[in-house]
Amino acid sequence: MNTKMIRYILGKMLGVEAVLLLLPALVSLIYREFSGVFFLISAAIAGVVFLLAGVKKPENRNIYGKEGMIIVASAWILWSLVGALPFTLSGSIPDYVDAFFETVSGFTTTGSTILPDIEALPQGMLFWRSFTHWIGGMGVLVFVLVLTKLDKKNTMYLIRAEVPGPEKDKLVPKTMSTARILYGMYFGLTAIEVLLLLLGGMNLYDSLIFSFGTAGTGGFANYSSSVGHFDSAYIDGVITVFMILFGINFNLYFFLLLRDFKPVWKNEELKTYLLMILSAACLITLNINHLYGNPLHAFRYAIFQVASIITTTGYATADHTLWPMFSQCVLLFLMMVGACASSTGGGMKVARFMMMMKCIKREIMQMVHPKSVSIIRMNGKKVDEDVLRTLNVYLMAYIGIIAGSVLLVSIDNMDFGTTFSSVLTTLNNIGPGINDVGPNGNFAGFSPLSKLVFCCDMLAGRLEIFPFLMLFTASAWNRKF
Amino acid sequence: MNTKMIRYILGKMLGVEAVLLLLPALVSLIYREFSGVFFLISAAIAGVVFLLAGVKKPENRNIYGKEGMIIVASAWILWSLVGALPFTLSGSIPDYVDAFFETVSGFTTTGSTILPDIEALPQGMLFWRSFTHWIGGMGVLVFVLVLTKLDKKNTMYLIRAEVPGPEKDKLVPKTMSTARILYGMYFGLTAIEVLLLLLGGMNLYDSLIFSFGTAGTGGFANYSSSVGHFDSAYIDGVITVFMILFGINFNLYFFLLLRDFKPVWKNEELKTYLLMILSAACLITLNINHLYGNPLHAFRYAIFQVASIITTTGYATADHTLWPMFSQCVLLFLMMVGACASSTGGGMKVARFMMMMKCIKREIMQMVHPKSVSIIRMNGKKVDEDVLRTLNVYLMAYIGIIAGSVLLVSIDNMDFGTTFSSVLTTLNNIGPGINDVGPNGNFAGFSPLSKLVFCCDMLAGRLEIFPFLMLFTASAWNRKF
Repeated sequence: MNTKMIRYILGKMLGVEAVLLLLPALVSLIYREFSGVFFLISAAIAGVVFLLAGVKKPENRNIYGKEGMIIVASAWILWSLVGALPFTLSGSIPDYVDAFFETVSGFTTTGSTILPDIEALPQGMLFWRSFTHWIGGMGVLVFVLVLTKLDKKNTMYLIRAEVPGPEKDKLVPKTMSTARILYGMYFGLTAIEVLLLLLGGMNLYDSLIFSFGTAGTGGFANYSSSVGHFDSAYIDGVITVFMILFGINFNLYFFLLLRDFKPVWKNEELKTYLLMILSAACLITLNINHLYGNPLHAFRYAIFQVASIITTTGYATADHTLWPMFSQCVLLFLMMVGACASSTGGGMKVARFMMMMKCIKREIMQMVHPKSVSIIRMNGKKVDEDVLRTLNVYLMAYIGIIAGSVLLVSIDNMDFGTTFSSVLTTLNNIGPGINDVGPNGNFAGFSPLSKLVFCCDMLAGRLEIFPFLMLFTASAWNRKF
Repeated sequence: MNTKMIRYILGKMLGVEAVLLLLPALVSLIYREFSGVFFLISAAIAGVVFLLAGVKKPENRNIYGKEGMIIVASAWILWSLVGALPFTLSGSIPDYVDAFFETVSGFTTTGSTILPDIEALPQGMLFWRSFTHWIGGMGVLVFVLVLTKLDKKNTMYLIRAEVPGPEKDKLVPKTMSTARILYGMYFGLTAIEVLLLLLGGMNLYDSLIFSFGTAGTGGFANYSSSVGHFDSAYIDGVITVFMILFGINFNLYFFLLLRDFKPVWKNEELKTYLLMILSAACLITLNINHLYGNPLHAFRYAIFQVASIITTTGYATADHTLWPMFSQCVLLFLMMVGACASSTGGGMKVARFMMMMKCIKREIMQMVHPKSVSIIRMNGKKVDEDVLRTLNVYLMAYIGIIAGSVLLVSIDNMDFGTTFSSVLTTLNNIGPGINDVGPNGNFAGFSPLSKLVFCCDMLAGRLEIFPFLMLFTASAWNRKF
């Protein structure tokens, strides 16, 4: 266990966060808000830690998978601990546990909030809150690695820990150069969305807030009625399309950039993802038609909510807790599935869901024809049995975390829908749930214990469980190995 | 596909059911109820089918795994279709879908009911309703095979399909003789419970009803307040102990009978099962203490409800829907775990749950020490990778069925707790859920579609999913194979 290298990289990480904190300070300056000072104080604290730990390079710079996971999990926690400071120092979120929850929710692109009145916050604070989505969307470590330099091999272990995904042979980000291209596309898509929102009459500040939330599939807004605030079919449409776009595997954009259309056209996950969105939207349209008067109107709200939930963004233009239970259950189902692998979206991922279905099919086929040997294919390629085994264990751990979290949160004695959906929405990095934590509710009513459980769930969900579990495994910290 | 043999065995099955239907007819005679006539009519119908299909032995008597599964799944459906006849013919349950639901719930030892007023039913009908639990507890096919004769090899395929379980090397019932011993023990334990209940002042009829319900881990009662009707600490105690006993792997009783104590003492599943019951009961006692005044009183209700839920019996002495959400969530968790493998209880089984935990632990250990090769052991023996793969697929199918069922049932627009727990309680063969389907509620309010979904869930749960899925796989019916 190379603890010196862990210390060094984590120190460096905080140095980068110190720089990032200057951006919201600038926004505060523009809006002439005194609270901007607290971004500078937090930046100074992070900067001091950087100077103490992140400057002197250790001699042994080798790290492996285990260190990679521990660094990634610790980095996310550290960034959230520091990122929460401005909220509490400025008094915008007086309770530090609440501020930590809000920051974890930001970086993990969950979008759940403990704020009962979002609009009371200064513009600088709201900007920082949404900016964390944008940084977290592509992974905080990948972000730092794009900006700084490390040995190629070490980089790989870090990236692999942060962007695990169900695919084994995924193209990107294998090397730093492809990671830079990915971030370039991420930046580009975000810029296009900002532009389109400006054309729809939004001001620059709001366009940035909502583009950050869409790009990171986060969902923080600066209005309590979320995207519903604008009540514009154009803005709904733009955000719907971009939520869907950011939920697609980024490797496919890479292929498009290379003018290689075949892998995109043949991608099974993409087809299933789009088909699920369309069929869910149609089913819900049928189910809520009577509430909205005409099918077109109903479809506008249905597809926005479907795209928002399956991509785990969490924006809302309607209070889906008022919809019939069938529509709510369709949304709960989409919550679990999540977006495509290697997108900024969370959840279990469409690819995992498809592999599960294929495993069930194979098992039945083998019972029918015991002598048949069948392999599982995705996009025409054989899926390794190792990948399937990890997928299975992932699923078990996923269910285990849900069960454990529900038990702990149930101590707060909320109703079952609130208890269950709050765990599901945080673990899958979505944002809103049903009942008390629906689009018009918030997480303020939970005890500090539950809020910490949600923080763990959000981090476990964003890091796809294993790096986070590793952090709590005693023997991972054993120096001998 | 040997369709002639399938027809022959199914015909034979109905012959046995015709004989079984004479028992409730006798009870009706004792209570001088006219409705007893309808048992005779139903028996006659079953008898005619038997004469048409189950008398002439086909020449090719070979059946394999696939036929075994299809026979088992069809047998359970057929028995339920015929077993429901007396309820509808007599007008006790006028709607045939309702009667089918009630009978499936009986044979699968679920214990969910559509009856708003149980006590309005004639004694003969209530006897038949509870008797189905007792028959279903050990498996309807095993029951028939104990009574009739088949080639040894064919027997094996049938038993394997009906009693799959997560263990590969389970001792029993490999052969017919061990199956007879098992049934003997089942009969013996039931008789002891009847005796102990008689000693507690219960009349013979009630003792039989409640012993059938305990032995099959079913949960049908002849009073709407279930076991709470007697309000006796002694009766609560006896039923608690017997629920726990019937939730234990029957193979262990077999070892006890052989005076071989080591495998019992070393059985990991048994230890975990008992530990789970005790810790759940203690946690709930702490949580509900304020409702019952003193810890001893609270513990009496806590352990009864815990034993009832984990063994998937479903009896109640208290309305746990009025308990705090934490207690309800502990019970929901136990619902999913279920009883021990090779017991009469349902659910996912403690052994599967333990293997899941061990798989997660192994995966993390392999990430910490990538070069380590670790095998998973249960009771000191290596668990085959094939068993683990089937376990994984079982889990996937289990979640898939829950998701699909919740979506279909949600069309009825009940609240989320009712929708979710009704699926969970039927798939795990428990009986009551929370909210509208709590211990004082019933399933009458659901649409016929939902009731059929529940019937499928109960059958899928009782047959541990795969034989039931097989029935719906088109290619399983292909004659070529």
